[in-house]
Amino acid sequence: MSSETLRIIPLGGLGEVGRNMMVYEYGDDILVVDSGLMFPENDMLGIDYIIPDMTYLEQHKEQVRGIVITHGHEDHIGAIHHLLNIVNVPIYATPLTRGLLEVKLGRNGLGSKAVLNTVQAGETVQIGPFKVEFFHVCHSIPDGVGLGIETPAGLIVHSGDYKFDHTPVDGWPSDYAKLAEFSQRGVLALLSDSTNAERAGWTPSEKVVDAALETVFQQAKGRIIIASFASLVSRMQQIANASARHGRKLAFVGPSMIDNMKMARKLGYLDIPENLVIPIDQALHLPDEEVAIMCTGSQGEPTSIMGRLSVGSNRLFDLKFGDTVVLSSHPIPGNEEAVYRVINRLIQRGADVVYEAIAPVHVSGHASQEEMKLLLHLTRPKYFIPIHGELRQLHQHARLARTIGLEPQNIQIIENGQIVEFTDGQMSLSDERVPSTYIFVDGSGVGDLDPDVMREREALSRDGMIMVNMTLSRDLGQVVYDPQIATHGFMLPREAEQLFENTRQQAIQAASKANGNIKRDVEEAVREHIYSETRRRPLIFVTVSRTF
Amino acid sequence: MSSETLRIIPLGGLGEVGRNMMVYEYGDDILVVDSGLMFPENDMLGIDYIIPDMTYLEQHKEQVRGIVITHGHEDHIGAIHHLLNIVNVPIYATPLTRGLLEVKLGRNGLGSKAVLNTVQAGETVQIGPFKVEFFHVCHSIPDGVGLGIETPAGLIVHSGDYKFDHTPVDGWPSDYAKLAEFSQRGVLALLSDSTNAERAGWTPSEKVVDAALETVFQQAKGRIIIASFASLVSRMQQIANASARHGRKLAFVGPSMIDNMKMARKLGYLDIPENLVIPIDQALHLPDEEVAIMCTGSQGEPTSIMGRLSVGSNRLFDLKFGDTVVLSSHPIPGNEEAVYRVINRLIQRGADVVYEAIAPVHVSGHASQEEMKLLLHLTRPKYFIPIHGELRQLHQHARLARTIGLEPQNIQIIENGQIVEFTDGQMSLSDERVPSTYIFVDGSGVGDLDPDVMREREALSRDGMIMVNMTLSRDLGQVVYDPQIATHGFMLPREAEQLFENTRQQAIQAASKANGNIKRDVEEAVREHIYSETRRRPLIFVTVSRTF
Repeated sequence: MSSETLRIIPLGGLGEVGRNMMVYEYGDDILVVDSGLMFPENDMLGIDYIIPDMTYLEQHKEQVRGIVITHGHEDHIGAIHHLLNIVNVPIYATPLTRGLLEVKLGRNGLGSKAVLNTVQAGETVQIGPFKVEFFHVCHSIPDGVGLGIETPAGLIVHSGDYKFDHTPVDGWPSDYAKLAEFSQRGVLALLSDSTNAERAGWTPSEKVVDAALETVFQQAKGRIIIASFASLVSRMQQIANASARHGRKLAFVGPSMIDNMKMARKLGYLDIPENLVIPIDQALHLPDEEVAIMCTGSQGEPTSIMGRLSVGSNRLFDLKFGDTVVLSSHPIPGNEEAVYRVINRLIQRGADVVYEAIAPVHVSGHASQEEMKLLLHLTRPKYFIPIHGELRQLHQHARLARTIGLEPQNIQIIENGQIVEFTDGQMSLSDERVPSTYIFVDGSGVGDLDPDVMREREALSRDGMIMVNMTLSRDLGQVVYDPQIATHGFMLPREAEQLFENTRQQAIQAASKANGNIKRDVEEAVREHIYSETRRRPLIFVTVSRTF
Repeated sequence: MSSETLRIIPLGGLGEVGRNMMVYEYGDDILVVDSGLMFPENDMLGIDYIIPDMTYLEQHKEQVRGIVITHGHEDHIGAIHHLLNIVNVPIYATPLTRGLLEVKLGRNGLGSKAVLNTVQAGETVQIGPFKVEFFHVCHSIPDGVGLGIETPAGLIVHSGDYKFDHTPVDGWPSDYAKLAEFSQRGVLALLSDSTNAERAGWTPSEKVVDAALETVFQQAKGRIIIASFASLVSRMQQIANASARHGRKLAFVGPSMIDNMKMARKLGYLDIPENLVIPIDQALHLPDEEVAIMCTGSQGEPTSIMGRLSVGSNRLFDLKFGDTVVLSSHPIPGNEEAVYRVINRLIQRGADVVYEAIAPVHVSGHASQEEMKLLLHLTRPKYFIPIHGELRQLHQHARLARTIGLEPQNIQIIENGQIVEFTDGQMSLSDERVPSTYIFVDGSGVGDLDPDVMREREALSRDGMIMVNMTLSRDLGQVVYDPQIATHGFMLPREAEQLFENTRQQAIQAASKANGNIKRDVEEAVREHIYSETRRRPLIFVTVSRTF
């Protein structure tokens, strides 16, 4: 074992440690694992998405040797075009993940620029000093892998997102043999997925979704419309199987879902008979009981197909009385209200709605507590670093590891930007940190927003704003017109008339008494007046114009 | 049975049917049950709370004979002062509920104006033509009641919020005998709580919280800080019991929690030894292992004690390494992100945090599916109206009722403002509706906001705003100064400098070419320019001043 140091650095947004990106560094060489995005929280107003802070990679871009992607979900691939704009190094991925990357890069105009390498699960790739062994794991998308990363400092096992599903849709269980082999070779450290650390037991198999869908297909008298994520390829397979069993044709709706479906069929990850899938416009002319439709919008997004169906504004087709709608997904935290609102509206419009809370039409793709313990027992690592979770989940994962015998000093909880070092087989936490703030992406801009701008948006949204335009005579500094008042998001104009009559008087008085900063004095007077009358604190903007 | 009509009208906010208020009307007489508030959803920006639309009561205020309150939670009492301002009729409630009403009315300056009557569970009160029998139900607050409402049209059973807890903290189970007696008399209709209609099985007893707290108190080495709702009197009792068992003194923090605690002790609903409770400043001088502190802030509110502790800005005391923090509550839908953020921060600051997901330190106060079926079997109603839930929950409750044999035509799902009528023992749905929009309360204003104002706030929050001030010469209409640009919540000023240089040129050009409406033309030019450069759509406000 070398005495040089292996450094591991998690990056990513919103306190989910290393969810979106992990950096492995040995000597002068860097390997990046995953490049994903996070969706904003409810109070991050106007933000499209969030990407990891890549400052450290930018500073060391000459050292980056390659990018390995574990699976094709947005939180692991969604920032790939931002990363490639910094370091255009080879990308390694399994066939389906590569296919999803190609779709994504094509949309961002980087289709031809990227160097993509296909690696099959079970194969090994040498990337600088890192010998990376891809091993198959089950997850809610096919072709996911974990990584055995052999470095001169020792063997690291990086789980990726995983579960131990004994009856997965594609019949391909996680690679237990490889994990056991790692343990025979001796695992220096295990880094593994903590998403469901708070969940007791064992995550149900994807198989249970089949049974729930079977019931839906048996009972539905009209059309069946299923919403899910565009990347949930195994769910597409399950819906196709159910449709075939029950003599329904299947139409896919939504460009990203159609792109992914086509690509997965071409690569052989979807086994669907040719005549089962029909275009949506054909489907709309078949009898209702012969149709299934699969689309996006399971997160209650107002502009999605499901969101538009729920309010009757979908262009292509409308909801019918007697339709059965299946939301085959779990609300991403923060989306609960939006999802439930859509469910209520669909019911109101006459649909029979089936969703996770009332039938197992979705299961988690992440390991629960007993699976986490199994992974620890299978790999028998010297050190353990829980990743892919918020601090509370990492802590719970660490607790689980202690219950099966790991020593507390051999478990390291880290935050994004912290650096774990391995030297001579010993783990330590560096005092150094690399930059790891949130990078907000809004419109076409990356990183030109910061928490101050976010706070301003929040302030605007709380009580709205009032603009006061004063015109003063240049010579005497007297108010020559009545101050003009305009508001936005403050209160109903008809309710505010009387109030503003008094506000104008206050503004004129303040201007006449002001010495020096008229703008500031008027703002203060207006702010006080509005607060004392309404107990609200809209933002006040005063502009002062002067006549010649 | 009279041939006059009994009308039942649910009111309340946010699509939870009848959660906050139910109106019973027979002939010329109206009985109001509950007067609560709802908390706003995440996208209702700047709203403090929402109250039921009371227009119908205002139109018929001469007919309102009384107000019955089922229990003391905010969603059933929180709008009482708004209701009393419309109809000041007698209020009927059990002792603890009355106590909580008094605290609330006192805070809103209505302490002396309200006419409060104490009714014990088991007693009957005649209110106009309504003979109201209060029967005890278990819930997450003591002294809750359901109502048997005997009317000339028949007997209605109104469950209120309830669960069937066989081992409640106060030792007082729900009144099964009374429910059975109702069924002997013949129940025309049951209206019952649908909150947990999606939850299989039987809600765990409050007793399981005791066991979880016992574990916490056994293992904690430092202080124990427990956050819960200010009205959760039974939790106060459980914490007091655990503190006594483990030789800890107990301090309460937060004015509403202290008020409620004092009132509940005075009325005998809290049985706490005199020397167990100490003021917080005394508690802070005791050894850590002898202290328990109970406070509010379990919903992650940034300005609450727990919110301030999580960021180190609490005035009275700070978090210490080794503190155990217990969140003894369930996040209200929409608060999940805020609650988890607080948990993560508390962990980061060195606390051991125990919350619902990892230990049963909280249980629901509402019946699950098997309890719902039990209530239906106990009361054997002719008609069933699921209330207290969103549409999806009412539908699920209706499904449950059908599985135990109720005929679909005897089940009526209604929305707020709809009217169910009972004439000659037959149920029908009226075509009429009473007003039932959301009434937003913000600051001291009630109902001076509407969805348009909310949309304006949302627009402001999405991409911020840009203000452009143009000064033109009166005679030639030429721009005489460089346009002034100010922004709020748009982007970082240093990033925007170059952009605004060009924006100014665009504004000047637009003004010079404008014929007629300069303001509108400049706004349009600026909007287009900003969008083409940034793909963002901030709100644009242009003011035009003219020199003499």
